[in-house]
Amino acid sequence: MYSFEELTKQFADKFGSDHFAGTVRSLYEPAEYFLGLGGKRVRPVLCLMGNELFGEIQPDAWQVANAVELFHNFTLIHDDIMDKATLRRGKPTVHTKYGESTALLSGDVMMIVAYEYLSKVSQVYLHKVLAIFNKMAKEICEGQQLDMEFEKRSDVTLNEYIHMITLKTSVLLAASLKMGALLGGSGEGNQGHLYAFGKNLGIAFQLQDDYLDAFGEPEKFGKQPGGDIIANKKTFLVIKALEVADTVQKATLLAHFRDNKPDKVEQVLQLFRDCKVDSWAQELKNKYLDTALFHLDEAAVTTTRKQSLKDLAHFLIRRDY
Amino acid sequence: MYSFEELTKQFADKFGSDHFAGTVRSLYEPAEYFLGLGGKRVRPVLCLMGNELFGEIQPDAWQVANAVELFHNFTLIHDDIMDKATLRRGKPTVHTKYGESTALLSGDVMMIVAYEYLSKVSQVYLHKVLAIFNKMAKEICEGQQLDMEFEKRSDVTLNEYIHMITLKTSVLLAASLKMGALLGGSGEGNQGHLYAFGKNLGIAFQLQDDYLDAFGEPEKFGKQPGGDIIANKKTFLVIKALEVADTVQKATLLAHFRDNKPDKVEQVLQLFRDCKVDSWAQELKNKYLDTALFHLDEAAVTTTRKQSLKDLAHFLIRRDY
Repeated sequence: MYSFEELTKQFADKFGSDHFAGTVRSLYEPAEYFLGLGGKRVRPVLCLMGNELFGEIQPDAWQVANAVELFHNFTLIHDDIMDKATLRRGKPTVHTKYGESTALLSGDVMMIVAYEYLSKVSQVYLHKVLAIFNKMAKEICEGQQLDMEFEKRSDVTLNEYIHMITLKTSVLLAASLKMGALLGGSGEGNQGHLYAFGKNLGIAFQLQDDYLDAFGEPEKFGKQPGGDIIANKKTFLVIKALEVADTVQKATLLAHFRDNKPDKVEQVLQLFRDCKVDSWAQELKNKYLDTALFHLDEAAVTTTRKQSLKDLAHFLIRRDY
Repeated sequence: MYSFEELTKQFADKFGSDHFAGTVRSLYEPAEYFLGLGGKRVRPVLCLMGNELFGEIQPDAWQVANAVELFHNFTLIHDDIMDKATLRRGKPTVHTKYGESTALLSGDVMMIVAYEYLSKVSQVYLHKVLAIFNKMAKEICEGQQLDMEFEKRSDVTLNEYIHMITLKTSVLLAASLKMGALLGGSGEGNQGHLYAFGKNLGIAFQLQDDYLDAFGEPEKFGKQPGGDIIANKKTFLVIKALEVADTVQKATLLAHFRDNKPDKVEQVLQLFRDCKVDSWAQELKNKYLDTALFHLDEAAVTTTRKQSLKDLAHFLIRRDY
């Protein structure tokens, strides 16, 4: 059994950025550039860990790991176009560097190469892997569409937000684990538990992300907090605050979003605290983490084999009481 | 054996626009809108005809037919974004009607649904179908990238142009036929001949398209000729004219492209005629058509079974001597 750090390193070594052998370099170079920006590679590692739960890692799991990482990067390239984001990991986004048309097309071809890796899976598993992958891929598009719609709405409920974030972020973690488990010979029961583990872990992670963007310590978080507040993003925190705030607080919050005064971040954070949105967010995050861990516990695998996944969950999500 | 008209009707009846069952309607409606604009559905029909060459049409061929038509429409949605085209079949393009972000995402999800249809192919054929499809899909992206690059270059050679058009247009016809043949139980030899038939037919079709845009009779062609000349598109005709024109003619042609005077179309057409580019284009088209028909002849299938494909070739390409 490998730790998630070991598998992350193994995957990084094998993955590289050499996935695009075609001669039209102007199409493939932007894709390679983007992969070269790096990333935590959490999704492929989840696939490998889901696979290793049931025995030695199978060659098929490596193919699927490549596919999910490429698919994830394809979504980032296209999302950056849609969000008009200029930077990703501190470097120019693909469309900023190469133009929108080439970025669009490089994203397209990256998705096709993801399917190329998938199609190398053994015949006996290919139908099932494709079914899980295709469902997940459509859901991610749905999540992105909902995310864009929510930006224009001011009446998004918490349930709607969690549904959006589940589609946009969590199903890829969930499906990566599930495909890994399937390829390890796991039955549908265990596949379901691993899917639920990944889904709930993803939601907890997104909650933490929203929380840290507001309340994170700059030294640990690596960036100045308040970015989402400055950008008027409708995070969990804003949605919950608008739900629980009294009339005066609500008016104040909406005024801050409208007026963008210099003390906006400070004032909004104070308002979040007054409404106890900060402690609520931590509780909700812990609830999803607990649900995730419950499903990991329920998987019919010896406890020692589950340790790496448990470690990863606790590495990704800091438990706060 | 069905005629291509019969198969076109059968496919149109079965295909419809009901491929997107998800609840996020704002993502799927643009995709359905675009499919509703119609089209000749040549590619799926080629898949069905390639299949019927070897016996009764198999259920797998219908799945692949759906996949190639959806993939084709996905490329059109994204191409329209890249080309900033406002109209398609006389109706607003998806990004004009729904915005660029939604168009991008609806295209993405249409590609995924194409793969969903592909993944319904029987286990015994799935690997081979995916290999043909993925290769073709990457080549189409390469073709579009080259097309965009060629717009910025003035030294594109005829060979480069034919290579671009082969990737952008012909490989989809070729691969549709090849997958149909494969699913009909055909061996690699016949698959190769059908691929070559489709590839050369596609090139002949594109040549004819360029020719008709310049020299077509408005009554038959359905639109005023000269659109490509007005848009300064570097078609076969322009590339060849620049190759064979003398110094004065070449300077005149380049001046027309620069100056955009009112009599530009008329003058450029006259120059094409002076350089005999019109008759050359017809000859070249016939050469590709003949090569296509040669490969159809070479396929080891009784002649009577080939008649529908021959009819379709002659329907798509008008032979001129």
